Amino acid sequence: MKGHIPLILVSNDDGYMAKGFEELIHAVKPLGEIIAMAPARPRSASGCSLTMNVPVNYKLRYQEPGISIYSCSGTPADCTKLALHTVCDRMPDLIISGINHGDNSSINAHYSGTMSVVFEGCMKGIPSIGFSLRTDNLDADFTPTLPYIYFICESVLKKGLPPNVCLNVNFPEAQNLKGIRICRQGEGTWINEWEQTSRRGDNKYFWMAGDFIETHPEQEDTDLWALRHGYASVVPLTIDLTAYRSMSNISRLFT
Amino acid sequence: MKGHIPLILVSNDDGYMAKGFEELIHAVKPLGEIIAMAPARPRSASGCSLTMNVPVNYKLRYQEPGISIYSCSGTPADCTKLALHTVCDRMPDLIISGINHGDNSSINAHYSGTMSVVFEGCMKGIPSIGFSLRTDNLDADFTPTLPYIYFICESVLKKGLPPNVCLNVNFPEAQNLKGIRICRQGEGTWINEWEQTSRRGDNKYFWMAGDFIETHPEQEDTDLWALRHGYASVVPLTIDLTAYRSMSNISRLFT
Repeated sequence: MKGHIPLILVSNDDGYMAKGFEELIHAVKPLGEIIAMAPARPRSASGCSLTMNVPVNYKLRYQEPGISIYSCSGTPADCTKLALHTVCDRMPDLIISGINHGDNSSINAHYSGTMSVVFEGCMKGIPSIGFSLRTDNLDADFTPTLPYIYFICESVLKKGLPPNVCLNVNFPEAQNLKGIRICRQGEGTWINEWEQTSRRGDNKYFWMAGDFIETHPEQEDTDLWALRHGYASVVPLTIDLTAYRSMSNISRLFT
Repeated sequence: MKGHIPLILVSNDDGYMAKGFEELIHAVKPLGEIIAMAPARPRSASGCSLTMNVPVNYKLRYQEPGISIYSCSGTPADCTKLALHTVCDRMPDLIISGINHGDNSSINAHYSGTMSVVFEGCMKGIPSIGFSLRTDNLDADFTPTLPYIYFICESVLKKGLPPNVCLNVNFPEAQNLKGIRICRQGEGTWINEWEQTSRRGDNKYFWMAGDFIETHPEQEDTDLWALRHGYASVVPLTIDLTAYRSMSNISRLFT
Protein backbone atom coordinates (compact mmCIF):
# COMPACT_ATOMS: atom_id res chain seq x y z
CA MET A 1 0.00 0.00 0.00
CA LYS A 2 3.07 2.30 0.03
CA GLY A 3 2.71 5.29 -2.26
CA HIS A 4 -0.58 3.94 -3.51
CA ILE A 5 -4.07 4.88 -2.43
CA PRO A 6 -6.23 1.75 -2.46
CA LEU A 7 -9.29 1.93 -4.66
CA ILE A 8 -12.39 0.40 -3.09
CA LEU A 9 -15.44 -0.33 -5.23
CA VAL A 10 -18.69 -0.49 -3.28
CA SER A 11 -22.07 -1.83 -4.39
CA ASN A 12 -25.17 -3.45 -2.93
CA ASP A 13 -28.59 -4.78 -3.86
CA ASP A 14 -30.81 -2.53 -1.72
CA GLY A 15 -30.14 0.44 -3.99
CA TYR A 16 -27.98 3.55 -3.74
CA MET A 17 -30.36 5.27 -1.30
CA ALA A 18 -30.13 2.45 1.27
CA LYS A 19 -28.91 3.26 4.77
CA GLY A 20 -26.60 0.23 4.85
CA PHE A 21 -24.87 1.46 1.68
CA GLU A 22 -24.11 4.84 3.19
CA GLU A 23 -22.91 3.22 6.42
CA LEU A 24 -20.59 0.90 4.49
CA ILE A 25 -19.06 3.76 2.51
CA HIS A 26 -18.38 5.76 5.65
CA ALA A 27 -16.96 2.74 7.48
CA VAL A 28 -14.26 2.14 4.85
CA LYS A 29 -13.62 5.72 3.76
CA PRO A 30 -10.40 6.01 5.83
CA LEU A 31 -8.96 3.00 3.95
CA GLY A 32 -8.81 4.48 0.46
CA GLU A 33 -10.56 6.12 -2.45
CA ILE A 34 -14.20 5.08 -2.76
CA ILE A 35 -16.10 4.52 -5.99
CA ALA A 36 -19.64 3.32 -5.36
CA MET A 37 -22.18 2.19 -7.92
CA ALA A 38 -25.44 0.68 -6.76
CA PRO A 39 -28.82 -0.13 -8.32
CA ALA A 40 -31.18 2.79 -8.87
CA ARG A 41 -33.93 0.79 -7.15
CA PRO A 42 -33.97 -2.12 -4.69
CA ARG A 43 -32.86 -5.39 -6.27
CA SER A 44 -33.07 -7.91 -3.47
CA ALA A 45 -32.83 -11.60 -4.42
CA SER A 46 -31.50 -10.78 -7.87
CA GLY A 47 -28.87 -13.53 -7.72
CA CYS A 48 -26.17 -13.16 -10.38
CA SER A 49 -28.74 -11.94 -12.91
CA LEU A 50 -27.61 -9.68 -15.76
CA THR A 51 -29.54 -7.23 -17.95
CA MET A 52 -29.34 -8.52 -21.51
CA ASN A 53 -32.33 -7.10 -23.38
CA VAL A 54 -32.20 -3.37 -22.71
CA PRO A 55 -29.26 -0.99 -22.35
CA VAL A 56 -28.06 -0.22 -18.85
CA ASN A 57 -27.11 3.30 -17.82
CA TYR A 58 -25.45 5.01 -14.88
CA LYS A 59 -25.59 8.46 -13.31
CA LEU A 60 -23.37 10.40 -10.88
CA ARG A 61 -25.35 11.05 -7.69
CA TYR A 62 -22.83 12.42 -5.19
CA GLN A 63 -19.20 13.48 -5.13
CA GLU A 64 -16.73 14.73 -2.54
CA PRO A 65 -12.94 14.34 -2.43
CA GLY A 66 -12.23 10.58 -2.32
CA ILE A 67 -15.86 9.49 -2.76
CA SER A 68 -17.97 9.17 -5.92
CA ILE A 69 -21.41 7.60 -5.79
CA TYR A 70 -23.28 6.45 -8.88
CA SER A 71 -26.62 4.81 -9.48
CA CYS A 72 -27.12 2.25 -12.25
CA SER A 73 -30.32 1.01 -13.88
CA GLY A 74 -29.15 -2.61 -13.83
CA THR A 75 -28.73 -5.43 -11.36
CA PRO A 76 -25.97 -5.58 -8.73
CA ALA A 77 -23.87 -7.77 -11.06
CA ASP A 78 -24.42 -5.20 -13.84
CA CYS A 79 -23.32 -2.42 -11.46
CA THR A 80 -20.08 -4.21 -10.71
CA LYS A 81 -19.26 -4.96 -14.34
CA LEU A 82 -20.25 -1.47 -15.47
CA ALA A 83 -18.33 0.39 -12.76
CA LEU A 84 -15.18 -1.58 -13.64
CA HIS A 85 -15.66 -0.72 -17.32
CA THR A 86 -16.56 2.96 -16.94
CA VAL A 87 -15.88 4.91 -13.76
CA CYS A 88 -12.89 3.00 -12.33
CA ASP A 89 -9.63 4.37 -13.75
CA ARG A 90 -7.74 1.34 -12.41
CA MET A 91 -8.49 -2.13 -11.02
CA PRO A 92 -9.94 -1.80 -7.53
CA ASP A 93 -7.88 -3.25 -4.68
CA LEU A 94 -11.08 -4.36 -2.98
CA ILE A 95 -14.75 -4.80 -3.86
CA ILE A 96 -17.30 -4.72 -1.04
CA SER A 97 -21.06 -5.06 -1.03
CA GLY A 98 -23.75 -4.18 1.48
CA ILE A 99 -24.39 -3.63 4.21
CA ASN A 100 -27.36 -5.72 3.23
CA HIS A 101 -30.56 -5.28 5.16
CA GLY A 102 -31.19 -8.97 5.80
CA ASP A 103 -29.46 -12.29 6.16
CA ASN A 104 -27.32 -13.80 3.39
CA SER A 105 -26.01 -16.77 5.32
CA SER A 106 -26.25 -20.44 4.32
CA ILE A 107 -27.78 -21.23 0.90
CA ASN A 108 -29.17 -17.70 0.70
CA ALA A 109 -25.88 -16.61 -0.84
CA HIS A 110 -27.21 -18.18 -4.05
CA TYR A 111 -30.19 -15.81 -4.25
CA SER A 112 -28.38 -12.77 -2.93
CA GLY A 113 -27.80 -9.69 -5.04
CA THR A 114 -25.35 -8.53 -2.39
CA MET A 115 -23.25 -11.63 -2.92
CA SER A 116 -23.51 -11.40 -6.72
CA VAL A 117 -21.32 -8.28 -6.49
CA VAL A 118 -18.82 -10.34 -4.54
CA PHE A 119 -18.87 -13.29 -6.95
CA GLU A 120 -18.44 -10.88 -9.85
CA GLY A 121 -15.42 -9.26 -8.20
CA CYS A 122 -13.96 -12.68 -7.43
CA MET A 123 -14.41 -13.77 -11.06
CA LYS A 124 -12.42 -10.69 -12.05
CA GLY A 125 -9.61 -11.64 -9.63
CA ILE A 126 -10.31 -8.82 -7.17
CA PRO A 127 -10.54 -9.49 -3.39
CA SER A 128 -14.26 -9.18 -2.63
CA ILE A 129 -16.38 -9.23 0.51
CA GLY A 130 -20.12 -9.11 1.17
CA PHE A 131 -21.57 -7.72 4.42
CA SER A 132 -25.10 -8.43 5.61
CA LEU A 133 -27.05 -7.78 8.80
CA ARG A 134 -29.54 -10.42 9.91
CA THR A 135 -32.55 -8.29 10.78
CA ASP A 136 -36.27 -7.85 10.20
CA ASN A 137 -36.18 -4.40 11.76
CA LEU A 138 -36.97 -1.72 9.17
CA ASP A 139 -34.94 0.81 11.14
CA ALA A 140 -32.02 -1.53 11.77
CA ASP A 141 -28.92 -0.19 13.51
CA PHE A 142 -25.76 -0.98 11.56
CA THR A 143 -23.44 0.78 14.03
CA PRO A 144 -22.16 -2.31 15.91
CA THR A 145 -20.98 -3.87 12.62
CA LEU A 146 -18.85 -0.92 11.49
CA PRO A 147 -15.61 -1.57 13.44
CA TYR A 148 -15.74 -5.22 12.30
CA ILE A 149 -16.16 -4.15 8.69
CA TYR A 150 -13.22 -1.77 8.98
CA PHE A 151 -11.02 -4.47 10.51
CA ILE A 152 -11.97 -7.12 7.91
CA CYS A 153 -11.44 -4.75 4.97
CA GLU A 154 -8.14 -3.51 6.37
CA SER A 155 -6.92 -7.10 6.81
CA VAL A 156 -7.93 -8.11 3.28
CA LEU A 157 -6.38 -4.98 1.77
CA LYS A 158 -3.10 -5.86 3.50
CA LYS A 159 -3.04 -9.61 2.95
CA GLY A 160 -5.33 -10.30 -0.03
CA LEU A 161 -7.47 -13.40 -0.54
CA PRO A 162 -6.61 -16.72 -2.23
CA PRO A 163 -7.52 -16.99 -5.95
CA ASN A 164 -11.20 -17.74 -6.64
CA VAL A 165 -12.07 -17.15 -2.97
CA CYS A 166 -14.25 -14.37 -1.58
CA LEU A 167 -15.88 -13.71 1.80
CA ASN A 168 -19.49 -13.80 2.92
CA VAL A 169 -19.77 -11.88 6.21
CA ASN A 170 -23.03 -11.85 8.17
CA PHE A 171 -23.78 -10.06 11.41
CA PRO A 172 -26.42 -10.88 14.00
CA GLU A 173 -28.51 -7.96 15.23
CA ALA A 174 -26.82 -7.25 18.56
CA GLN A 175 -25.33 -4.25 20.30
CA ASN A 176 -22.39 -6.30 21.55
CA LEU A 177 -20.98 -8.72 19.02
CA LYS A 178 -18.94 -11.56 20.50
CA GLY A 179 -16.28 -11.53 17.78
CA ILE A 180 -15.58 -13.15 14.40
CA ARG A 181 -15.95 -16.84 13.60
CA ILE A 182 -14.58 -18.40 10.41
CA CYS A 183 -17.32 -20.83 9.37
CA ARG A 184 -18.55 -23.10 6.64
CA GLN A 185 -21.88 -22.49 4.89
CA GLY A 186 -24.64 -23.98 7.04
CA GLU A 187 -27.26 -26.29 5.59
CA GLY A 188 -30.89 -25.32 5.53
CA THR A 189 -34.00 -25.23 3.44
CA TRP A 190 -36.96 -22.93 2.77
CA ILE A 191 -40.50 -24.15 3.45
CA ASN A 192 -43.93 -22.46 3.20
CA GLU A 193 -42.53 -20.49 0.29
CA TRP A 194 -45.78 -19.21 -1.21
CA GLU A 195 -48.85 -17.34 -0.05
CA GLN A 196 -51.80 -17.79 -2.35
CA THR A 197 -53.66 -14.71 -3.54
CA SER A 198 -56.14 -14.12 -6.33
CA ARG A 199 -56.72 -11.72 -9.17
CA ARG A 200 -60.10 -11.35 -10.83
CA GLY A 201 -61.16 -14.77 -9.63
CA ASP A 202 -57.97 -16.52 -10.76
CA ASN A 203 -56.35 -18.05 -7.68
CA LYS A 204 -53.16 -19.19 -9.36
CA TYR A 205 -51.34 -16.12 -8.03
CA PHE A 206 -48.74 -16.37 -5.29
CA TRP A 207 -46.61 -14.03 -3.20
CA MET A 208 -43.18 -15.31 -2.27
CA ALA A 209 -42.91 -15.88 1.46
CA GLY A 210 -41.07 -18.59 3.38
CA ASP A 211 -39.65 -19.95 6.61
CA PHE A 212 -36.04 -21.00 6.78
CA ILE A 213 -35.32 -24.31 8.50
CA GLU A 214 -31.82 -25.17 9.63
CA THR A 215 -30.93 -28.79 8.84
CA HIS A 216 -28.27 -29.37 11.54
CA PRO A 217 -28.65 -26.71 14.24
CA GLU A 218 -26.34 -28.72 16.51
CA GLN A 219 -23.29 -28.28 14.25
CA GLU A 220 -21.06 -25.56 15.66
CA ASP A 221 -18.87 -24.82 12.64
CA THR A 222 -21.56 -23.15 10.50
CA ASP A 223 -22.49 -19.55 9.85
CA LEU A 224 -25.99 -20.29 11.11
CA TRP A 225 -24.62 -21.40 14.50
CA ALA A 226 -22.33 -18.39 14.75
CA LEU A 227 -25.14 -15.94 14.03
CA ARG A 228 -27.47 -17.60 16.53
CA HIS A 229 -24.76 -17.28 19.18
CA GLY A 230 -23.95 -13.61 18.65
CA TYR A 231 -20.84 -13.87 16.44
CA ALA A 232 -20.12 -12.29 13.08
CA SER A 233 -19.81 -15.20 10.63
CA VAL A 234 -17.08 -15.10 7.97
CA VAL A 235 -17.50 -17.81 5.33
CA PRO A 236 -14.86 -18.14 2.60
CA LEU A 237 -16.77 -18.97 -0.59
CA THR A 238 -15.41 -20.15 -3.91
CA ILE A 239 -16.66 -19.39 -7.41
CA ASP A 240 -15.46 -22.85 -8.49
CA LEU A 241 -18.68 -24.81 -7.99
CA THR A 242 -17.13 -28.19 -8.86
CA ALA A 243 -18.10 -30.91 -6.36
CA TYR A 244 -14.55 -32.29 -6.21
CA ARG A 245 -15.37 -34.81 -3.50
CA SER A 246 -17.99 -36.42 -5.76
CA MET A 247 -15.98 -36.68 -8.97
CA SER A 248 -15.31 -40.41 -8.66
CA ASN A 249 -18.91 -41.15 -7.64
CA ILE A 250 -20.18 -39.32 -10.69
CA SER A 251 -17.78 -41.17 -12.98
CA ARG A 252 -19.19 -44.49 -11.72
CA LEU A 253 -22.72 -43.25 -12.42
CA PHE A 254 -22.21 -43.54 -16.17
CA THR A 255 -20.33 -46.83 -16.41
CA MET B 1 -38.57 -47.72 -9.89
CA LYS B 2 -40.74 -50.85 -9.48
CA GLY B 3 -44.44 -50.08 -9.23
CA HIS B 4 -43.71 -46.40 -9.25
CA ILE B 5 -43.84 -44.01 -12.18
CA PRO B 6 -41.01 -41.49 -11.81
CA LEU B 7 -42.09 -37.87 -11.77
CA ILE B 8 -39.82 -35.58 -13.76
CA LEU B 9 -40.09 -31.81 -13.34
CA VAL B 10 -38.81 -29.83 -16.32
CA SER B 11 -38.03 -26.13 -16.57
CA ASN B 12 -35.71 -23.77 -18.45
CA ASP B 13 -34.85 -20.10 -18.84
CA ASP B 14 -35.62 -19.61 -22.54
CA GLY B 15 -39.35 -19.76 -21.89
CA TYR B 16 -42.04 -22.39 -22.41
CA MET B 17 -42.19 -21.78 -26.18
CA ALA B 18 -38.49 -22.58 -26.70
CA LYS B 19 -37.53 -25.38 -29.04
CA GLY B 20 -34.97 -26.80 -26.61
CA PHE B 21 -37.70 -27.12 -23.94
CA GLU B 22 -39.93 -29.16 -26.23
CA GLU B 23 -37.00 -31.34 -27.29
CA LEU B 24 -36.06 -32.00 -23.67
CA ILE B 25 -39.60 -33.01 -22.74
CA HIS B 26 -39.82 -35.43 -25.65
CA ALA B 27 -36.37 -36.87 -24.92
CA VAL B 28 -37.28 -37.90 -21.36
CA LYS B 29 -40.97 -38.69 -21.87
CA PRO B 30 -40.37 -42.48 -21.95
CA LEU B 31 -38.77 -42.28 -18.49
CA GLY B 32 -41.78 -41.12 -16.49
CA GLU B 33 -44.57 -38.63 -15.93
CA ILE B 34 -43.62 -35.11 -17.01
CA ILE B 35 -44.63 -31.88 -15.31
CA ALA B 36 -43.08 -28.86 -16.97
CA MET B 37 -43.23 -25.26 -15.81
CA ALA B 38 -41.16 -22.64 -17.60
CA PRO B 39 -41.06 -18.85 -17.76
CA ALA B 40 -43.74 -17.14 -19.83
CA ARG B 41 -41.00 -15.13 -21.57
CA PRO B 42 -37.25 -15.63 -22.09
CA ARG B 43 -35.26 -15.19 -18.89
CA SER B 44 -31.68 -15.77 -19.92
CA ALA B 45 -28.97 -14.79 -17.44
CA SER B 46 -31.43 -14.54 -14.59
CA GLY B 47 -29.12 -16.34 -12.16
CA CYS B 48 -30.90 -17.55 -9.03
CA SER B 49 -33.08 -14.43 -8.95
CA LEU B 50 -36.51 -14.59 -7.31
CA THR B 51 -39.61 -12.43 -7.74
CA MET B 52 -40.26 -10.72 -4.42
CA ASN B 53 -42.25 -7.57 -5.15
CA VAL B 54 -45.16 -8.76 -7.28
CA PRO B 55 -47.22 -11.96 -7.18
CA VAL B 56 -46.22 -14.74 -9.53
CA ASN B 57 -48.81 -16.73 -11.43
CA TYR B 58 -48.94 -19.86 -13.57
CA LYS B 59 -51.14 -21.14 -16.36
CA LEU B 60 -51.75 -24.55 -17.96
CA ARG B 61 -50.62 -24.41 -21.59
CA TYR B 62 -50.71 -28.02 -22.82
CA GLN B 63 -51.78 -31.41 -21.57
CA GLU B 64 -51.72 -34.98 -22.83
CA PRO B 65 -51.52 -38.24 -20.86
CA GLY B 66 -48.27 -38.13 -18.88
CA ILE B 67 -47.34 -34.56 -19.86
CA SER B 68 -48.52 -31.24 -18.40
CA ILE B 69 -46.89 -28.00 -19.49
CA TYR B 70 -47.35 -24.74 -17.58
CA SER B 71 -46.03 -21.25 -18.05
CA CYS B 72 -45.15 -19.03 -15.09
CA SER B 73 -44.71 -15.26 -14.89
CA GLY B 74 -41.61 -15.56 -12.71
CA THR B 75 -37.97 -16.48 -13.06
CA PRO B 76 -36.68 -20.04 -13.58
CA ALA B 77 -36.04 -20.34 -9.82
CA ASP B 78 -39.62 -19.14 -9.18
CA CYS B 79 -40.92 -21.75 -11.67
CA THR B 80 -39.16 -24.53 -9.81
CA LYS B 81 -40.35 -23.44 -6.38
CA LEU B 82 -43.89 -22.78 -7.61
CA ALA B 83 -44.26 -26.06 -9.51
CA LEU B 84 -43.16 -27.98 -6.41
CA HIS B 85 -45.69 -26.08 -4.30
CA THR B 86 -48.65 -26.22 -6.70
CA VAL B 87 -48.80 -28.64 -9.62
CA CYS B 88 -46.60 -31.50 -8.32
CA ASP B 89 -48.69 -33.97 -6.29
CA ARG B 90 -45.48 -35.59 -4.98
CA MET B 91 -41.76 -34.87 -4.80
CA PRO B 92 -40.22 -35.25 -8.27
CA ASP B 93 -37.68 -38.03 -8.71
CA LEU B 94 -35.70 -35.79 -11.03
CA ILE B 95 -35.56 -32.12 -12.00
CA ILE B 96 -34.11 -31.19 -15.37
CA SER B 97 -33.59 -27.86 -17.09
CA GLY B 98 -32.99 -26.83 -20.69
CA ILE B 99 -32.08 -27.65 -23.30
CA ASN B 100 -30.59 -24.19 -23.07
CA HIS B 101 -29.85 -22.38 -26.27
CA GLY B 102 -26.29 -21.37 -25.40
CA ASP B 103 -23.32 -22.37 -23.30
CA ASN B 104 -23.50 -22.67 -19.52
CA SER B 105 -20.03 -24.07 -18.96
CA SER B 106 -17.33 -22.65 -16.67
CA ILE B 107 -18.25 -19.62 -14.53
CA ASN B 108 -21.34 -19.05 -16.66
CA ALA B 109 -23.23 -21.43 -14.39
CA HIS B 110 -23.37 -18.50 -11.95
CA TYR B 111 -25.38 -16.30 -14.34
CA SER B 112 -27.45 -19.09 -15.82
CA GLY B 113 -31.20 -19.25 -15.35
CA THR B 114 -31.02 -22.83 -16.65
CA MET B 115 -28.71 -23.78 -13.80
CA SER B 116 -30.78 -21.87 -11.22
CA VAL B 117 -33.48 -24.52 -11.71
CA VAL B 118 -30.87 -27.16 -10.99
CA PHE B 119 -29.49 -25.41 -7.90
CA GLU B 120 -33.04 -24.97 -6.62
CA GLY B 121 -33.78 -28.66 -7.09
CA CYS B 122 -30.52 -29.58 -5.40
CA MET B 123 -31.34 -27.32 -2.43
CA LYS B 124 -34.62 -29.25 -2.11
CA GLY B 125 -32.75 -32.57 -2.08
CA ILE B 126 -33.95 -33.66 -5.54
CA PRO B 127 -31.49 -35.04 -8.15
CA SER B 128 -31.19 -32.21 -10.68
CA ILE B 129 -29.48 -31.78 -14.05
CA GLY B 130 -29.05 -28.86 -16.44
CA PHE B 131 -28.57 -29.36 -20.18
CA SER B 132 -27.17 -26.68 -22.49
CA LEU B 133 -26.06 -26.56 -26.11
CA ARG B 134 -23.08 -24.37 -26.97
CA THR B 135 -24.33 -22.58 -30.07
CA ASP B 136 -24.80 -19.18 -31.67
CA ASN B 137 -27.03 -20.66 -34.33
CA LEU B 138 -30.60 -19.34 -34.04
CA ASP B 139 -31.93 -22.50 -35.65
CA ALA B 140 -29.75 -24.87 -33.62
CA ASP B 141 -30.21 -28.62 -33.98
CA PHE B 142 -30.66 -30.31 -30.61
CA THR B 143 -31.09 -33.82 -32.10
CA PRO B 144 -27.55 -35.15 -31.46
CA THR B 145 -27.89 -34.36 -27.73
CA LEU B 146 -31.12 -36.30 -27.18
CA PRO B 147 -29.77 -39.86 -26.74
CA TYR B 148 -27.16 -38.48 -24.30
CA ILE B 149 -29.85 -36.71 -22.31
CA TYR B 150 -31.93 -39.87 -22.16
CA PHE B 151 -28.94 -41.92 -20.99
CA ILE B 152 -27.88 -39.39 -18.33
CA CYS B 153 -31.42 -39.00 -16.95
CA GLU B 154 -31.98 -42.75 -16.93
CA SER B 155 -28.71 -43.28 -15.02
CA VAL B 156 -29.52 -40.59 -12.44
CA LEU B 157 -33.09 -41.89 -11.98
CA LYS B 158 -31.62 -45.34 -11.26
CA LYS B 159 -28.65 -44.38 -9.12
CA GLY B 160 -29.40 -40.92 -7.72
CA LEU B 161 -26.85 -38.18 -6.97
CA PRO B 162 -24.85 -37.49 -3.79
CA PRO B 163 -26.40 -34.97 -1.35
CA ASN B 164 -25.88 -31.31 -2.33
CA VAL B 165 -24.54 -32.34 -5.74
CA CYS B 166 -26.17 -31.64 -9.11
CA LEU B 167 -24.98 -31.89 -12.72
CA ASN B 168 -24.15 -29.24 -15.30
CA VAL B 169 -24.17 -30.88 -18.74
CA ASN B 170 -23.05 -28.93 -21.81
CA PHE B 171 -22.97 -30.13 -25.41
CA PRO B 172 -20.84 -28.83 -28.26
CA GLU B 173 -22.64 -28.19 -31.53
CA ALA B 174 -21.71 -31.28 -33.51
CA GLN B 175 -23.55 -33.99 -35.41
CA ASN B 176 -21.29 -36.68 -33.97
CA LEU B 177 -20.52 -36.27 -30.29
CA LYS B 178 -17.43 -38.13 -29.10
CA GLY B 179 -18.94 -39.20 -25.77
CA ILE B 180 -19.25 -37.96 -22.20
CA ARG B 181 -16.41 -36.53 -20.11
CA ILE B 182 -16.72 -35.94 -16.35
CA CYS B 183 -14.97 -32.60 -15.83
CA ARG B 184 -14.30 -29.85 -13.39
CA GLN B 185 -15.50 -26.29 -14.00
CA GLY B 186 -12.99 -24.56 -16.29
CA GLU B 187 -11.58 -21.15 -15.46
CA GLY B 188 -12.25 -18.18 -17.66
CA THR B 189 -13.22 -14.54 -17.69
CA TRP B 190 -15.37 -12.15 -19.68
CA ILE B 191 -13.79 -9.14 -21.40
CA ASN B 192 -15.19 -6.39 -23.65
CA GLU B 193 -18.43 -6.69 -21.70
CA TRP B 194 -20.09 -3.45 -22.76
CA GLU B 195 -20.97 -1.70 -25.99
CA GLN B 196 -21.57 1.99 -25.55
CA THR B 197 -24.72 3.52 -26.98
CA SER B 198 -26.48 6.83 -26.42
CA ARG B 199 -29.95 8.13 -25.68
CA ARG B 200 -30.90 11.76 -26.32
CA GLY B 201 -27.27 12.81 -26.15
CA ASP B 202 -26.48 10.90 -22.95
CA ASN B 203 -23.72 8.41 -23.75
CA LYS B 204 -23.74 6.63 -20.40
CA TYR B 205 -25.84 3.84 -21.87
CA PHE B 206 -24.41 0.38 -22.50
CA TRP B 207 -25.51 -2.89 -24.08
CA MET B 208 -24.14 -6.02 -22.48
CA ALA B 209 -21.80 -7.83 -24.85
CA GLY B 210 -18.61 -9.75 -24.14
CA ASP B 211 -15.91 -12.17 -25.21
CA PHE B 212 -15.11 -15.17 -23.08
CA ILE B 213 -11.43 -15.89 -22.50
CA GLU B 214 -10.30 -19.27 -21.23
CA THR B 215 -7.60 -18.94 -18.56
CA HIS B 216 -5.92 -22.33 -18.97
CA PRO B 217 -6.86 -23.79 -22.37
CA GLU B 218 -4.12 -26.40 -22.01
CA GLN B 219 -5.78 -28.11 -19.02
CA GLU B 220 -7.56 -31.25 -20.22
CA ASP B 221 -9.80 -31.92 -17.22
CA THR B 222 -12.17 -28.97 -17.70
CA ASP B 223 -15.57 -28.60 -19.31
CA LEU B 224 -14.11 -25.98 -21.65
CA TRP B 225 -11.55 -28.47 -22.99
CA ALA B 226 -14.16 -31.20 -23.41
CA LEU B 227 -16.50 -28.94 -25.36
CA ARG B 228 -13.71 -27.70 -27.62
CA HIS B 229 -12.81 -31.31 -28.39
CA GLY B 230 -16.29 -32.53 -29.27
CA TYR B 231 -17.33 -34.17 -25.97
CA ALA B 232 -20.40 -33.61 -23.84
CA SER B 233 -19.10 -32.17 -20.55
CA VAL B 234 -20.64 -33.35 -17.27
CA VAL B 235 -19.58 -31.24 -14.28
CA PRO B 236 -20.78 -32.22 -10.81
CA LEU B 237 -21.54 -28.96 -9.01
CA THR B 238 -22.24 -28.39 -5.34
CA ILE B 239 -24.55 -25.88 -3.71
CA ASP B 240 -22.14 -25.72 -0.74
CA LEU B 241 -20.03 -22.74 -1.81
CA THR B 242 -17.60 -23.01 1.13
CA ALA B 243 -13.96 -22.76 0.02
CA TYR B 244 -12.87 -25.63 2.28
CA ARG B 245 -9.29 -25.61 1.00
CA SER B 246 -8.88 -21.99 2.13
CA MET B 247 -10.34 -22.22 5.62
CA SER B 248 -6.99 -22.18 7.42
CA ASN B 249 -5.65 -19.37 5.21
CA ILE B 250 -8.67 -17.26 6.02
CA SER B 251 -8.32 -17.93 9.75
CA ARG B 252 -4.74 -16.60 9.61
CA LEU B 253 -5.98 -13.47 7.84
CA PHE B 254 -7.61 -12.15 10.99
CA THR B 255 -4.97 -12.98 13.58
